[in-house]
Amino acid sequence: MIEERAPDIVEALNDMPLELAVAVLLHLAPDRAIEVLDQPGLEHESELVERMPREAAAKLLAGMSADRVADVFRQVKESDRTELLDLLEPDASANIRRLLEYPKDTAGSIMTTEFASVPSTYTVRQTLDYIRHVESTRETVYAIYVLDPLSQSLVKTVSLRRLVAGDLDAPVVSVARPGRLITAAPLMDREDIARLISKYDLLAVPVVERGRVIGIVTVDDVIDAIVQESTEDVQKFGGMAAIDEPYLEVGFWQMMKKRGGWLCALFLSEMLTASAMQGYEGELEKAVVLTLFIPLIMSSGGNSGSQATSLLIRALALRELQIRDWWRVALREIPNGLALGTMLGLVGVVRISLWQYLGFYDYGEHWLLIASTVGVALIGIVMFGSLTGSMLPFILQRIGFDPASASAPFVATLVDVTGLVIYFSVASLILRGTLL
Amino acid sequence: MIEERAPDIVEALNDMPLELAVAVLLHLAPDRAIEVLDQPGLEHESELVERMPREAAAKLLAGMSADRVADVFRQVKESDRTELLDLLEPDASANIRRLLEYPKDTAGSIMTTEFASVPSTYTVRQTLDYIRHVESTRETVYAIYVLDPLSQSLVKTVSLRRLVAGDLDAPVVSVARPGRLITAAPLMDREDIARLISKYDLLAVPVVERGRVIGIVTVDDVIDAIVQESTEDVQKFGGMAAIDEPYLEVGFWQMMKKRGGWLCALFLSEMLTASAMQGYEGELEKAVVLTLFIPLIMSSGGNSGSQATSLLIRALALRELQIRDWWRVALREIPNGLALGTMLGLVGVVRISLWQYLGFYDYGEHWLLIASTVGVALIGIVMFGSLTGSMLPFILQRIGFDPASASAPFVATLVDVTGLVIYFSVASLILRGTLL
Repeated sequence: MIEERAPDIVEALNDMPLELAVAVLLHLAPDRAIEVLDQPGLEHESELVERMPREAAAKLLAGMSADRVADVFRQVKESDRTELLDLLEPDASANIRRLLEYPKDTAGSIMTTEFASVPSTYTVRQTLDYIRHVESTRETVYAIYVLDPLSQSLVKTVSLRRLVAGDLDAPVVSVARPGRLITAAPLMDREDIARLISKYDLLAVPVVERGRVIGIVTVDDVIDAIVQESTEDVQKFGGMAAIDEPYLEVGFWQMMKKRGGWLCALFLSEMLTASAMQGYEGELEKAVVLTLFIPLIMSSGGNSGSQATSLLIRALALRELQIRDWWRVALREIPNGLALGTMLGLVGVVRISLWQYLGFYDYGEHWLLIASTVGVALIGIVMFGSLTGSMLPFILQRIGFDPASASAPFVATLVDVTGLVIYFSVASLILRGTLL
Repeated sequence: MIEERAPDIVEALNDMPLELAVAVLLHLAPDRAIEVLDQPGLEHESELVERMPREAAAKLLAGMSADRVADVFRQVKESDRTELLDLLEPDASANIRRLLEYPKDTAGSIMTTEFASVPSTYTVRQTLDYIRHVESTRETVYAIYVLDPLSQSLVKTVSLRRLVAGDLDAPVVSVARPGRLITAAPLMDREDIARLISKYDLLAVPVVERGRVIGIVTVDDVIDAIVQESTEDVQKFGGMAAIDEPYLEVGFWQMMKKRGGWLCALFLSEMLTASAMQGYEGELEKAVVLTLFIPLIMSSGGNSGSQATSLLIRALALRELQIRDWWRVALREIPNGLALGTMLGLVGVVRISLWQYLGFYDYGEHWLLIASTVGVALIGIVMFGSLTGSMLPFILQRIGFDPASASAPFVATLVDVTGLVIYFSVASLILRGTLL
């Protein structure tokens, strides 16, 4: 086990029954167990800690990094939480309580409070001595925060590489990164922090409150955050509530809750299609042939809408577009939709004509009018689908929702009812006096 | 401009016309211009370089990091490429030519060749001296590669933090990371490298060929890769080919190509619904009331399928599941689908009964049989949708495609035809002798 890296031990533990994993953890050297518990990939970490003897748990928690301890406590039962917190040193316990107050997915909730900082009066040599001293107790020492000795407020950031390359007797600020400080507020969303770290190629961002550094968010926290966000985005786009556990570990009832809610909501909205169809009962009875193309036409609207939505969700998430750009998008989607619709419309007309001509099916004497109805309706529906699909993420963001809540099924449902109305309106225009 | 950080200059340049951006770049101090060109966020970098006087371009390219120069060359016109390569030093030019040979999105294509390495005979002090010396010319010095002095093969990896904390006169290997080496092969996919870096919390992974380090992939390359992959995944899930430019910069014809291809393919497959409907012409004419629920029933199949697909795409992408787990997923999705379908079926029966009872619509004397048809069909369709949606990513992966090509519209199309068949089969079972 000595030669195994902690992430590999984590994978083995994740595959074990909880009781066995607890036994393994208690059997490891404490330093090693702490290293393993500190890994973000470890699952059920709070259940593991809850099943340990209180004394042993307290010892391990005391050694873990503060952000990870906060993660554990976030999932621990309320009753166990107080009991475990009381076993910690008063300082540590107060620190954890403070971290637990930040809302989920904010800088405050993912930051670590163990970072390296020195007063601005230090030299490069003094700073290096300090780093040597604290290296083993800090999550990262690659970014060092230079504080004003009196106010303790953040003055500059120094990278370890520049520090190592610097003149030993020069003041530490001489090797500081030039330019304005890049900092995050405690309530900043983790996605925005990820963007900051990625844009400026940072290894850590200091979280600053009233001028003071209260913690740092490191690049590996951010990678985990990005991966988790994209999982959530894909799941939401698939039309369900996001789940934060691996597929095989989600229980039956939880899965029902995550999927059933949206599925029911979509089903109820989609019932409007039945009502819309009832409104066209007369047309349907006169021209049953029209029903043949309903699935085809509706799905084309949904598909074009889902394409546009996926494009816009990402463009908004990556901040390529702002809410105020909605009209620029609309001005692009209308011609896009018209062109795509015309394309599908032509294919549709050719298909109907071909079937009629080759004798695969007889659409009756007015087959050309029926083909025209399908063609014209497709233009309208694809255009409407593209426009709706592209505007939905803007509307959701405007009214305060995550634009990524705009799912493919959501768009399809929105487009379906209108699609039917467009189809039957076109039909009554073109077929009036003949079939209708 | 001195106080501006390079990524902020990049943002300004991205918003300028190309000619102006070139003028700004040529006006900056060369070091500064190189720093700006090295930023991965800079758009149209190859057009910018192509528009510069050849001499100036060569000077800037010579200063840029090798992976970034390779990025530029990858997009430069063939004719300009040779001309520009010839302006570089022979060594640098050979290096770039080698990088250009690696396929897109592999370790080789995103690695940088400027990394820090020392022979294993060095002490900590010698290594620190070396780092001080090369710091400004290496993309990262946080990971230092210890090589066998004879074979040049990789022996150990040392982190700068452990080096700084180490005993100056001890051999460098004494502060090396324990455990087995984490390395990447040159043709490894960037997604797998991202997983490696994220799992082991690394700042860089060495790319090793026949035992020798030929380059490194750093954490910031990986963040860019992850963000780009998730954009592609969402777009593909939306049912279109992935685009790698911001939404507003994609031209009309390119957009048509990316969206039109899939839209047409889906449309052509969806035409099978029209054929399926033709097969049930007799039933349709006898019971027009059945058509009212076609959109509702088809969309429920598509929605449940799209949920299952989004779940499985991510589970496969995150390697939570392997292909061989398909049957475990199937065994979960069948009961999930049955339960979700029963739920929707009940809602459907209640809706029809309610409308009948409240007099909103008259479904005729056999309304209860119609309601039962809808209810039973929904159970079958939602179950079939969940199963199809969950198996599709496995099938795609099995036949060598990216499971993320399984889009919501793709699944909906697959489910639609079968949905119609299920609906009409249930109808003919339940309604035979009454309506049919």
